[in-house]
Amino acid sequence: MNNRIKRFLKYMESEGIKKAVVLKKENINYFLGKYFMSFSVLVFEEQPYLYVGKLDKDYAEEVFNFLEIKEFKSWEEIFKGCDGIERELPIGYLKYIDKDYKIISDKIKELRMIKDKEEIELIKKAAEISDKAITWVYNNLDNVKNLNEYELVAEIEYIMKKHGSIKPAFDSIVVSGKKTSFPHALPTKDKIKDVLLIDIGAVYDGYCSDITRTFLLKDDEEMRKIYNLVYEAKKIAEEHLKEGISAKQIDNIVREFFGDYKELFIHSLGHGVGLEVHEEPRLSNKLKDDEDVILKEGMVVTIEPGLYLKNKFGVRIEDLYLIKKNGFEKLSKAEIPEY
Amino acid sequence: MNNRIKRFLKYMESEGIKKAVVLKKENINYFLGKYFMSFSVLVFEEQPYLYVGKLDKDYAEEVFNFLEIKEFKSWEEIFKGCDGIERELPIGYLKYIDKDYKIISDKIKELRMIKDKEEIELIKKAAEISDKAITWVYNNLDNVKNLNEYELVAEIEYIMKKHGSIKPAFDSIVVSGKKTSFPHALPTKDKIKDVLLIDIGAVYDGYCSDITRTFLLKDDEEMRKIYNLVYEAKKIAEEHLKEGISAKQIDNIVREFFGDYKELFIHSLGHGVGLEVHEEPRLSNKLKDDEDVILKEGMVVTIEPGLYLKNKFGVRIEDLYLIKKNGFEKLSKAEIPEY
Repeated sequence: MNNRIKRFLKYMESEGIKKAVVLKKENINYFLGKYFMSFSVLVFEEQPYLYVGKLDKDYAEEVFNFLEIKEFKSWEEIFKGCDGIERELPIGYLKYIDKDYKIISDKIKELRMIKDKEEIELIKKAAEISDKAITWVYNNLDNVKNLNEYELVAEIEYIMKKHGSIKPAFDSIVVSGKKTSFPHALPTKDKIKDVLLIDIGAVYDGYCSDITRTFLLKDDEEMRKIYNLVYEAKKIAEEHLKEGISAKQIDNIVREFFGDYKELFIHSLGHGVGLEVHEEPRLSNKLKDDEDVILKEGMVVTIEPGLYLKNKFGVRIEDLYLIKKNGFEKLSKAEIPEY
Repeated sequence: MNNRIKRFLKYMESEGIKKAVVLKKENINYFLGKYFMSFSVLVFEEQPYLYVGKLDKDYAEEVFNFLEIKEFKSWEEIFKGCDGIERELPIGYLKYIDKDYKIISDKIKELRMIKDKEEIELIKKAAEISDKAITWVYNNLDNVKNLNEYELVAEIEYIMKKHGSIKPAFDSIVVSGKKTSFPHALPTKDKIKDVLLIDIGAVYDGYCSDITRTFLLKDDEEMRKIYNLVYEAKKIAEEHLKEGISAKQIDNIVREFFGDYKELFIHSLGHGVGLEVHEEPRLSNKLKDDEDVILKEGMVVTIEPGLYLKNKFGVRIEDLYLIKKNGFEKLSKAEIPEY
């Protein structure tokens, strides 16, 4: 039994929860300490045990030898007597629940928000992998200009895969030209030109990284001006990034810095990263006061200011940070171009 | 407004549902007729409309010009007066629901189970892409033997990506040696040897493919025997595969064919494929009578018999089929090795 499980069992005891059922993949992987994507259900009673399908039982017994493995029989069996469930549980399962229940999601979120040593190592590994892909692009910009977006994204994901990424942490954003003004545009067959925005992440043993670089491919005064504003905004954020500042505060500091340009900063400043590429805490000016979170040592977050000029272009620069008592450790290390 | 939306609105009318809310990504993409992974919520009243985040509004308006795009404000607004929800809706949203509701999931499943012309084209395209990767492996087996599993999976996914696959349809299974006896094992740094099992899928504009080939890399009588049993089992299934047979029947036919070996066939015969790589209908002997499905023209399913010898090796061969009135069209076309 690992420390994460022990902490959760302690919480259950303090809340008087006798049997909790975990279905959400990332929560299961958190407690298992291992990436496992096959069907599984984690149940906590006095001891935790894991239900898997018949075809995965041998594998699970070999890999997860620190808890009991059971073969899935029925949902009735799993939920019998259950009084702790996740907020994400699909409503279709409610019919199996025969007792009053408490929601266990906030506790799991709270546990997952502070990364332990093992988790930080895996996130570092994921960040190293996405760094390699970004660095390859930066060192090969002259060749990259001859590719279309599909071809470039294939190269990028190939590099990440070769270095041990299970899969991209999200649909890689590799776009150029006007499409960069849409923060979430997907690659197309378009040739790469004018400006190239790359927002990618790797997954290493379940843990994600997230990094964005924007490359200016032509000499344009307005682009350079916007680029440098975003570049400076990230520096401002870094000056304030440490334990004690709130998620909302730091977003507002960057938003104020943008001044007249803040209307073009159409998303939030950043988000937590771990087993999910978007998790708590969100760094956003839209948080209500009771949703705001004080940053703490052990949290891992992105800082990703961006400015988007409709029908023209967009610029975003993003790095990944481990919060420390008096500052941070930058986990993504790929060079940031200067223009 | 497309036919899929029209059919659903007709269903709502017949059921007396005034306002239905769709959150499940694949369901939204089904009605949009387009892959869209950013945050979105589809609402059906007399007309359908789509909520997206502020940062995706311009993009959505450009791409989905056949329905109204609204900016997400609050869950209260979305669920106000809602009386149709999905079974997959997380229980956390129940607090916003102010009326009695009906479950709309079965109708959406039923619609999605029969693929229309556009969907079949996209699945064919996805199948062509995974065929290319499998064919490359078959044509390069001598070189492949010098790779480890990580390296081979990188090559395979690179080929799929270059040909337009957005991402793998699931974590690619590319394993060799004893690990092939676990149906869901993940690639490792192990060198490829003895036997190589490749189970992969592409995603093209949201639609998945799914194909498995097993390559025998050494001359072993038991392997050959098991391989040919699986090979024959797939042929038996094909003889019965057409409109009118039930999902449970066809699984049972193959299970009976395996005779003494049926204990080694530890999973079901196949599953539907579309916007999800595992969807309805499931071809399984474990279906209860009221869960069984009669196969119909327009369904797309896998047939994937497999035998797994603990601590030795496993063999699985899988193809993708479009059900027709008097038979099927095979959508995956990569050659099947003969041993």
